This record gives sequence, structure tokens and C-alpha cells, in this order.
Amino acid sequence: MKKELYIGIMTGTSMDGIDLVIAGFDGFPKIIAEYSAPIYPTLKKNLFDFATKKIVNLDLLVVSHFALAHEYAKVVNNALKKAKLKAKDIRAIGLHGQTIRHLPKLGATFQLGSGPALSALTGIDVVSDFRSGDMAIGGQGAPLMPMFDYCFLASNSTNRIILNIGGIANMTFLPAGCREEDIIAFDTGPGNMIIDVLTNEFFYKPFDSGGKIAKKGKINDNMLSEFLANQYFRQSPPKSTGRELFGEKFLAKFKKSAEKKNLSASDIIATATELTARTIADALRFLPKKDLKSHSTEIIASGGGVKNNFLCERIKKLLPDIGFRTSDEIGIPSQAKEALAFAWFAKSFLDGEYIHLPKTTDASKKIILGSLSKGINVSF
Amino acid sequence: MKKELYIGIMTGTSMDGIDLVIAGFDGFPKIIAEYSAPIYPTLKKNLFDFATKKIVNLDLLVVSHFALAHEYAKVVNNALKKAKLKAKDIRAIGLHGQTIRHLPKLGATFQLGSGPALSALTGIDVVSDFRSGDMAIGGQGAPLMPMFDYCFLASNSTNRIILNIGGIANMTFLPAGCREEDIIAFDTGPGNMIIDVLTNEFFYKPFDSGGKIAKKGKINDNMLSEFLANQYFRQSPPKSTGRELFGEKFLAKFKKSAEKKNLSASDIIATATELTARTIADALRFLPKKDLKSHSTEIIASGGGVKNNFLCERIKKLLPDIGFRTSDEIGIPSQAKEALAFAWFAKSFLDGEYIHLPKTTDASKKIILGSLSKGINVSF
Repeated sequence: MKKELYIGIMTGTSMDGIDLVIAGFDGFPKIIAEYSAPIYPTLKKNLFDFATKKIVNLDLLVVSHFALAHEYAKVVNNALKKAKLKAKDIRAIGLHGQTIRHLPKLGATFQLGSGPALSALTGIDVVSDFRSGDMAIGGQGAPLMPMFDYCFLASNSTNRIILNIGGIANMTFLPAGCREEDIIAFDTGPGNMIIDVLTNEFFYKPFDSGGKIAKKGKINDNMLSEFLANQYFRQSPPKSTGRELFGEKFLAKFKKSAEKKNLSASDIIATATELTARTIADALRFLPKKDLKSHSTEIIASGGGVKNNFLCERIKKLLPDIGFRTSDEIGIPSQAKEALAFAWFAKSFLDGEYIHLPKTTDASKKIILGSLSKGINVSF
Repeated sequence: MKKELYIGIMTGTSMDGIDLVIAGFDGFPKIIAEYSAPIYPTLKKNLFDFATKKIVNLDLLVVSHFALAHEYAKVVNNALKKAKLKAKDIRAIGLHGQTIRHLPKLGATFQLGSGPALSALTGIDVVSDFRSGDMAIGGQGAPLMPMFDYCFLASNSTNRIILNIGGIANMTFLPAGCREEDIIAFDTGPGNMIIDVLTNEFFYKPFDSGGKIAKKGKINDNMLSEFLANQYFRQSPPKSTGRELFGEKFLAKFKKSAEKKNLSASDIIATATELTARTIADALRFLPKKDLKSHSTEIIASGGGVKNNFLCERIKKLLPDIGFRTSDEIGIPSQAKEALAFAWFAKSFLDGEYIHLPKTTDASKKIILGSLSKGINVSF
């Protein structure tokens, strides 16, 4: 029997690079290879500008749509070479692309990185643009992880909170022995986004490695309360967010408040870290009390934030009755989880399976998400 | 046997509206229904701005990507209703979308009108984004009509020049009894684009109906020579063009030249019309002389320009030895031809067939063009 392999490619809100996995889904996901690559600086700068600026140069935007596809193609080819695989060994690539706008209230979203270009360049079928269909019929186009979490990470004996701490943090609640309709999932708010930008600005580092800076700082409770008051954290799910709410403007406000209070750079990082920890911990208020009472509950954490030990310690302290493990401990490398999910989304498209839960995205019905561009090697 | 029906949707450079056909391809194309609809004024204005301005509002762009898909969905639903058909009667929609950038030199193109959104809204499979794959591998992403022309309009006894006069004019040369490798195709230059804008500006009409205005004017030979000197007209095929070369800047130069020469409004329209006629007629210099000598040659014309009698008369006069018929005369309604081709491109994607000719687009190889988004009704 021919083994079916898929590639998943993720570039998150934090733009910290391109994450790629090669995986099979014959039962529980099996990762054959993991690969990460930075985005070259000029392209990264342009992507960041598109994601943060109101007004853009349309020539540059369209050119970047293709430039990013060329980057993805290089990463795919390097990963295949390293894994000693050929294009024809891969059934399909699931491509998230780089989100430059996600406007759930306006029913519109856009990811850069052309799917048809990537399939033409790699000779592999590409499924991309997973969020648009959901949004066209009233959905938020997010979160997409819950179905993956449900299929592979649910437990019969324990409630599980599948927590991903990327640029934005999101959680999927899977009560013990849950059915599809029991799932609750939403973005809790900022993940690493605020911490990363501030660390970059004050310490010239891309992120607060291990949370060492935050650990040295002192959390400012006044400032924390001020930002915990944000309307988003009170809003009931379904809800999703991104740079629109927790981007430049939020950051400017955050820095201004810190300045007024004369906080040191490490105090600011500590407070930003606590904001992420608190909004994650506080988000449990949206989960059904009866489920939390009837079974023990554990967090299964993934995403770049898992490497921030201080952040993880804070979440554990804030939630003393809740278990805390990383997804690595149950067989899913935390850095690769989202890329892995997109590999599986590509499979789902080809198999005609749903990947969104209208209850969590708010879409009016279930549809097949994604758009398929054919590779040259696969069909002939 | 189940009859297979397809929908094709075209919105051209001139943005004169949405053209839709419902057709079958059981042998020669058979059009079941034709439908045209205007784009509502604010959306049309935004599309025009995106196509002509360097700097754009990215929120508005992304929202328009979806707004146009919603417009297409309305047109599809109206057309189905009028034709007494249901979504499930249609195998797929072939969607061109609205080109807002086409940058062959930079290997990038973008069409507005989200395919995944349209499939979600109609419940019909949609194939869209036909040009990106070709461009990613070195092609110009255009022209795409030649394969359609070759499959349905070639003749064994006569050379045929399949001429489409849309915003831009393009021709496909099919020598008598030709094989795929004999085909030559390229954009000749402006079609109705210059004429339409000037007519709108001077006479407050969307186009020069029947060429009546041009007929009253006097062609200015000096001015004509000046613009015929444009490098594009001398360039050998493969070549493709669009608003980038014959848009705002070209128009401004055209008007300035007319002003200097004190031309009347109708003289300007006459001269613009002659520019289109001459560049089409002159383009025959790029066709192999031996073919033109060995068989008689006829033009099969389509596109909005066919309704401009004066323009057609001028082309006939400039090419006294070449026959001239509209595609209507051989069974393809000239207004619907491009939409019809996109319906067929959707079929080609699903059947795994090539639609581009690397010799005419300059792509490095043949690939399957387009990207498939699944409808809800079709797969289940």
C-alpha cells in the first residue's frame, strides 16, 4: 500500500519564520520531518508593513504574493532533499500563507503566498486559502484548529484544553469523551505578539528566551488591570482576533502607560507576559462549569510560547487545579502543531471532509474549506 | 447520461459589467443561457481605483475581494433562476475575476473576486485564479484564449485569425489544418479601452455606440503616427499587455497630443479608433508569410468591439485580402466568448487538461491552471 505523505506550511502572525512539516495521517499523525526557515529580511519587512499599514503599494503587494510563494517553494525543496523524498512522494501541501488582513466583522480575510504559484513551482498539489469560504457565509474564518484537536487530542477520561500560544493565543476545550457539538474554541487574546515586539525594541532580541527577562522584571498590577479591562477579554466566544486589535495601536497604548508609570524595560516585559498568562487563565470562565467539575482538566500547550518557561509557570500558578503539559508530551511537537494541522487540512480537502466547526467559527453551515491548485507531477 | 453544464464568468479590463454564460461542451460549445449584469457603482469605482492607482487602502481591497464574490454569487443565482436550473445542475464555475494588476515582467498578477467565497455562496465548485501558475514558471499569464480557439475554431481549409476586441485586443492565429505548435497568439494593444474612456469623458457615454462618433470625426495622421511608434507594437510575440501600458499615463499623453493639435472631441475618438484598427491590422506582420500565402485567411471577431461598426469597417478596409466575420456567424456569440472560454477552462481543470500554450505565454512547461474551491451541494 502506498504511504500517503503531506506537507504543512505555517507562517504565523509573529512572522518568526516558515514552519514546515512532512507527515502521514494513517491513524495518529506521524511527523516524518520538521523544517524551519527564516523569511529573508526585505520580504519580512514588506509582509510586516502589509500587516500593519493602512495604505500599501499594490504592485509590491502583488509581487510579494508571488515572492512568498517562491520562498515557500525553496523551503519545500530543501525539506524534501533533507528528508530524501521527491515531489511525487507527497500527496499535497496544506498552505496557510501569511495573513495580512483578517477582518471578521467585515467578512474578509487575505493571506499572501499564492497557492497556484507554489503548486506550479513544486509540482505538488497545493491546498490553500482555508479561511475565505467560512467567512463568506458569516463565519470568523477562525479558529481552524479545533477539528484537528478534536480528532487527535481528545481524551475519554480527562477534559483537555488545547492551548496554542503563537502570536495570538487560542484554546480548544474538549470535555472528557466529548462530541463535536461540545467543543468550544476561541482566541484568548495576545500570545507572544506583544512580548516579542517589546523584547525586540528594548533588548534587540526576537523573543524573550525562556522568559528570562520577564522573570527579572516586576509585574505592574495597575497597568495590568488597565489592559485586562479590554472589551475583547469579556466578550463571549465564538470570537477571534489578530493584529487589528492587538497590533500597533494596542502596543503604543501599552508603552505609553508604562512610560507614565516609569517602568523599567524588564518590568514592561514582565507585565506583558502576565497579560498573556492572565488572559489565558481568565478565559476558563467561558468553559462550562459542569464539565470542569465532573472531570479533571489538563492544558495541552503548543506554539512558540511553550518555550517561555516563565509564561508557562505563571499559567500553572494561576490555575493550580489544572494540569499542564506540552503537546510534545503526547506526541505532537509543539512548534510544528499548526503546520501539522494544515497538512491534515490538505488531506481533508482531498478526502471531502469538513475542517471547521460552525459553532466555533459562527459560519452558517459546514463547507469544504480550501482551494486546490494542481501540481505537475501528481496528475500525470 | 447526465448532461454536464458549466458557468463561465468574465469581467474584463474595461469593467463594463459581469458577463456570464451557462454552457455545455459535449462537442462544440452549446450556450444554454447568457446573462450580463452591471457592477454597482461604488464597487466599480473601487475596482477602477485598484486597477489604476499605485497606492491603495488594504482593508478596502480585501473587503472588495469578497464584495465582488458576493456580486458574482447574485449574478449566478439570478442566471440560474432565469434558466430554471439549480446549483446542482452545474458541474463547475470558471471564474476569471477582475484583474487589478498584471505584471508579466515581474511574474505577478492578481484578480479580485474570491473563488472560495463564491463556491461557499453558490454551493457550486469554482475554478479561479487561472493565470498565477503560468506566471510562476516564467509565463506572461496570458493569453489564455488560444487553446479554446484552437479546440473549437480552427479550420482545415482556411487560416483563421481569432480576434477579440475587449478593453485590450488580442489575436490567435490558427493556420489552416494547424497543430498546437503552429499557434501564434498575443495582445495587439488597446481594444476599446482608450475609445471608451474618451467617449465617456467627452460625450458622457460608456462607449461609442456603433462607432457613430468616430465616423463623424477626422483621423489625425500625425497623432496616429506618434502613437503607432509605441515600442509595444514593434515587439515580437509572445507579448501581453494591459492597463499598465495603455492606461492612465498613455491616455494623458494621448489627450495632451490632441490638445496641442486642437482636435475636436470626435476627431480624438476617430483617431483613437484608428489606432485600435491599425494596430490590429499591422499585427499581421507577425504571422508567418508562408501560411498567409498558401491559404486564404479570415478574421473571426468577438468582444465588445464587434459592435463598433466603424472600427470593424476600418479593419476590413485596412486588410482588403482578409475575410472578416464575427464569431456569432460561426456559432459563438461574440459578447459571450470569453466567459464561455472560462466555463471550458473550469471543465479542463476538472478533467486534468492543459489550457495554456507555453509557446504563446512563454511558460517553461505545461501545467494545469486554476484553483478549485468546492461547493457544498456538489460533493455530498
